[in-house]
Amino acid sequence: MSDASSGLPVCGVVGLGAMGMGIARSLKRAGLEVVGCDVSAASRKTFEDEGGQCVAEASALAPRCDVILLVVVNADQVMSVLFGDGKDDGLATQLAAGSLVIQCATVAPSVAETLGQRLDQAGLLMLDAPISGGAAKAATGELSVMASGTPQAFAKAAPVLDAMAATVHHLGDVPGPGSSVKLVNQHLAGVHIAAAAEAMALGLRMGIDGRALYRVITQSAGNSWMFENRVPHILDGDYRPLSAVDIFVKDLNIVHDTGRELRLAMPVASSALQQFTAASGMGLGREDDSAVVKVYAATGGVALPAANDESAQ
Amino acid sequence: MSDASSGLPVCGVVGLGAMGMGIARSLKRAGLEVVGCDVSAASRKTFEDEGGQCVAEASALAPRCDVILLVVVNADQVMSVLFGDGKDDGLATQLAAGSLVIQCATVAPSVAETLGQRLDQAGLLMLDAPISGGAAKAATGELSVMASGTPQAFAKAAPVLDAMAATVHHLGDVPGPGSSVKLVNQHLAGVHIAAAAEAMALGLRMGIDGRALYRVITQSAGNSWMFENRVPHILDGDYRPLSAVDIFVKDLNIVHDTGRELRLAMPVASSALQQFTAASGMGLGREDDSAVVKVYAATGGVALPAANDESAQ
Repeated sequence: MSDASSGLPVCGVVGLGAMGMGIARSLKRAGLEVVGCDVSAASRKTFEDEGGQCVAEASALAPRCDVILLVVVNADQVMSVLFGDGKDDGLATQLAAGSLVIQCATVAPSVAETLGQRLDQAGLLMLDAPISGGAAKAATGELSVMASGTPQAFAKAAPVLDAMAATVHHLGDVPGPGSSVKLVNQHLAGVHIAAAAEAMALGLRMGIDGRALYRVITQSAGNSWMFENRVPHILDGDYRPLSAVDIFVKDLNIVHDTGRELRLAMPVASSALQQFTAASGMGLGREDDSAVVKVYAATGGVALPAANDESAQ
Repeated sequence: MSDASSGLPVCGVVGLGAMGMGIARSLKRAGLEVVGCDVSAASRKTFEDEGGQCVAEASALAPRCDVILLVVVNADQVMSVLFGDGKDDGLATQLAAGSLVIQCATVAPSVAETLGQRLDQAGLLMLDAPISGGAAKAATGELSVMASGTPQAFAKAAPVLDAMAATVHHLGDVPGPGSSVKLVNQHLAGVHIAAAAEAMALGLRMGIDGRALYRVITQSAGNSWMFENRVPHILDGDYRPLSAVDIFVKDLNIVHDTGRELRLAMPVASSALQQFTAASGMGLGREDDSAVVKVYAATGGVALPAANDESAQ
């Protein structure tokens, strides 16, 4: 099933959203044969207009591909693509033995472990490979991948990882640790965004100039990657989504569920989750995650900077 | 009262702890005349053995100094030094008119504002000048100062700030904004330490190797200045205090009190405060602030790395 002319795998990319589209383009640019898959005709057309091949149904990938990248939103979508909707018509039963599933979604480590066992029973390889870096790094093939899986899975994935990632962290020889490390990153990322919003709200409420505050904090011990990256959205009043509020509602709920499984209380992540949930409850779920600051505007009388220009909402 | 031979101010440094001692040494090294003040005979002896002058009572500074630096722990100590213990025998009534008080403690912005008004009424200048950078930067004269005050206060403070600081942020022309910006920094610093501890606890509890996790996170969007700086203490099992748990109990309570004054709910800082309070309740108040991770060990069955060697506790 490999591309006979090159010996390289043929890759199916399931999910042509911001991340999946970037990955599909990076693989194609690197000379790999790629088939995109998305229920959205508009997404398929975008990739097709660039010369890409597309299918609407994941099952159509099975006869053509020996590597499947799952770049979908959550564990339910992963399970649905692989195992069908209770009708056992998923990809896992259709792929040729020895094919590789690269699972890129943020899922609970327990889900990644279960998935690995089920795919192994189906005669398939799996790389647990959540991704980090956002749409920009996906587009340039410079993602970070937090990966775990067997040496065979890593070996088969190598040309694909080379094309899509600047950094591949090898975190273990079974599925699970990749998702665990991604979950720790999402814990911190979510808490830091909520903390950045809360701290900016405090500063603005005390009458401090937002840009002066940003200058000082980014040079001080209170800085974080997220503070530095997201606070400019607040200062510009620009909440167009690069990564949406509802992503952190989802990911911090995975943190919550995992803490529940492990009986590990995590009150700091829990409070951040409540703030994202409140933002989503205000109807802001599809705005940029920095819009969590609007919870503080609504509840604490904080005056936020207005949008700079009409292109920002 | 200035040093007649140089025209430079004579500086009294109240509080010869880790920060005050470093500042006193930096001022002396820069050629300023310095008188240290501490109730601890041991601290005075340390500075005297290096050729420094010391007094035990702050009132003894009044006839000799025209700049007073307050490098004490909290607002109560600031008030006690300046206004006495209800007996009106504080420095504020004893200093010559036009003398300058540089207030370096982390206090509520409302305290800094009140202080500025009372000192103004006493005919004194005040610079609201909380410091950041830790004992190491204090020792080398490379602190960050978050400063606000009148142009006259800044002018008189200039040679002192030159000697003690690498960076002076000018945040306003009255006392208050300096303390406000410091408070925002402490909000973030405290939340980020608690979040780092909680995230490491999650990772360790899931069976991830701590050093591998540190390597990945410090290269990822979940990174913070505090994660990078404090997690090595956890990995080394070394909780000797560089900055103590009780400092964040104090500072996050100032955040809490300020939120109460402003009616601004800050649940993320509040949850971090509770974790530092729990650590203090476990008897860890004087350990390094990274010891907040022991709350997770105690409540979530997280196995923490042991100390590397016998010099670590």
